[in-house]
Amino acid sequence: MGRQRMAEAGKAPKIVGTVAELRSAVADYRRAGETLGFVPTMGALHEGHIALVKQAQTLADRVVVSIFVNPTQFAPNEDFSRYPRTFDADVDKLAQAGCDLVYAPGREDMYPAGFSTGISIAGPAQGLESDFRPHFFSGVAIVVAKLLLQTAADVAVFGEKDYQQLRVVTQMARDLDLPVRIVPGPTVRESDGLALSSRNRYLTPEERTVAPVIHRALTTAAIAIKAGAVPDAAAAEAEATIARAGLKVDYVAARNAETLAPLASPDEPVRLLAAAWLGTTRLIDNIGV
Amino acid sequence: MGRQRMAEAGKAPKIVGTVAELRSAVADYRRAGETLGFVPTMGALHEGHIALVKQAQTLADRVVVSIFVNPTQFAPNEDFSRYPRTFDADVDKLAQAGCDLVYAPGREDMYPAGFSTGISIAGPAQGLESDFRPHFFSGVAIVVAKLLLQTAADVAVFGEKDYQQLRVVTQMARDLDLPVRIVPGPTVRESDGLALSSRNRYLTPEERTVAPVIHRALTTAAIAIKAGAVPDAAAAEAEATIARAGLKVDYVAARNAETLAPLASPDEPVRLLAAAWLGTTRLIDNIGV
Repeated sequence: MGRQRMAEAGKAPKIVGTVAELRSAVADYRRAGETLGFVPTMGALHEGHIALVKQAQTLADRVVVSIFVNPTQFAPNEDFSRYPRTFDADVDKLAQAGCDLVYAPGREDMYPAGFSTGISIAGPAQGLESDFRPHFFSGVAIVVAKLLLQTAADVAVFGEKDYQQLRVVTQMARDLDLPVRIVPGPTVRESDGLALSSRNRYLTPEERTVAPVIHRALTTAAIAIKAGAVPDAAAAEAEATIARAGLKVDYVAARNAETLAPLASPDEPVRLLAAAWLGTTRLIDNIGV
Repeated sequence: MGRQRMAEAGKAPKIVGTVAELRSAVADYRRAGETLGFVPTMGALHEGHIALVKQAQTLADRVVVSIFVNPTQFAPNEDFSRYPRTFDADVDKLAQAGCDLVYAPGREDMYPAGFSTGISIAGPAQGLESDFRPHFFSGVAIVVAKLLLQTAADVAVFGEKDYQQLRVVTQMARDLDLPVRIVPGPTVRESDGLALSSRNRYLTPEERTVAPVIHRALTTAAIAIKAGAVPDAAAAEAEATIARAGLKVDYVAARNAETLAPLASPDEPVRLLAAAWLGTTRLIDNIGV
């Protein structure tokens, strides 16, 4: 399979725009006995996305990537209209990566007139992002549920960069008995530690030099916790560091790495998560302890 | 296929209690190239359920019936604990009908600890039942979504007896891109018109003689509408008839047969729907015009 992938890298992927075309292409793979991996994206692809595609290639015979800027996960005051659309460049990158199929539905394909269904998730969706973007996970849940059911993938890779989203999607897939395995993909970073994000392109050159403070502060906190510091105290120190660098902090928190509940015992696996504004750009990041 | 079914009638169906066993049995059917029909029930089976099973047999090679009294669609003050459980008799009836597979999960199989996901449906779920059982359709939606995803059936049959539920499930399947066809099954009635229902066994002999008034009143209203009466006026007359018979009416309404929205034009397809209490038993029924 690795050989086949190498041979196909650079070949333009098939591009489909409707559920019917998608299912027809997937049915061809199935008839050939091939398994299917899936990476959902909102386009504006960077090396972090490509790493997820390459990871999916190690897990399945074929890989489909969706490109859909999902309106339901943006609040009216957020950056939906400003969000970068770079479709041709995205397809070039996916061709280089050897992606088999690009699924780029229109808004009316995903949410036709009369659309009436919502999905809510408690548990890992509570707090953190939800305290600042209360609409966000209902928007993510409905679009991810639809995409997983449309593609009928065997395995889907979600980046750890959006760690709470990863936990929410994992919970939803389990609760709804979606017949798919959700696999986390490690965060890809610039050499100075900044997590790759489609929103990094909003940063001014000056802001770009400041942005790695989030990762540095979380790393310092993780080292302190491993050395015995109280997680909440270490998170508070990271928050102070990030604020001193001039960012407006939404949250810096130490949470149970699986449930994302506040820590209750010293034996729990810990994840440090942060969100902060640098000028008009909201950055999020997280790290395991 | 009809012949195979006849041959198998009376043979005890396979009974499974977990998703893993269910999926294993379904995988056997799939390997044999067989299609799968599905009829979800809460047990307490009567001829109405059996008619749905027989309908499913005309639509698919194999039929699975689930038996699960779903706690999430009962409010705390409703009849969850009192709801009839007649598992052995149910399996006998399903054996007679030639059902292939009975799926009877436990509560903890469906809703394990930490379960966190909810589904809400606007559109057809608004009003009618929701005005009196506000929890009902969220409970139905989550259990039906899970059952459809667990069984991975090609086609599922839902009785028109629960007409609003049928419309809600149809809307959900469309909105979530569930890869299943939802097919309505006609209501089965006693000779005096009473719609078969598991809850009819709650009725006293005296109440049982009164109960057919709902169907009679709806039928009279449907005839009047076909003859030119204003639907809302005909529904009001049916409501008065049912109330005069001593029932406490929750609603009698004429609605758009597909969206269940109030009628706005004379060309819409009309459905008459009613819910009323007879003593401590809540009865629902509906009829097309």
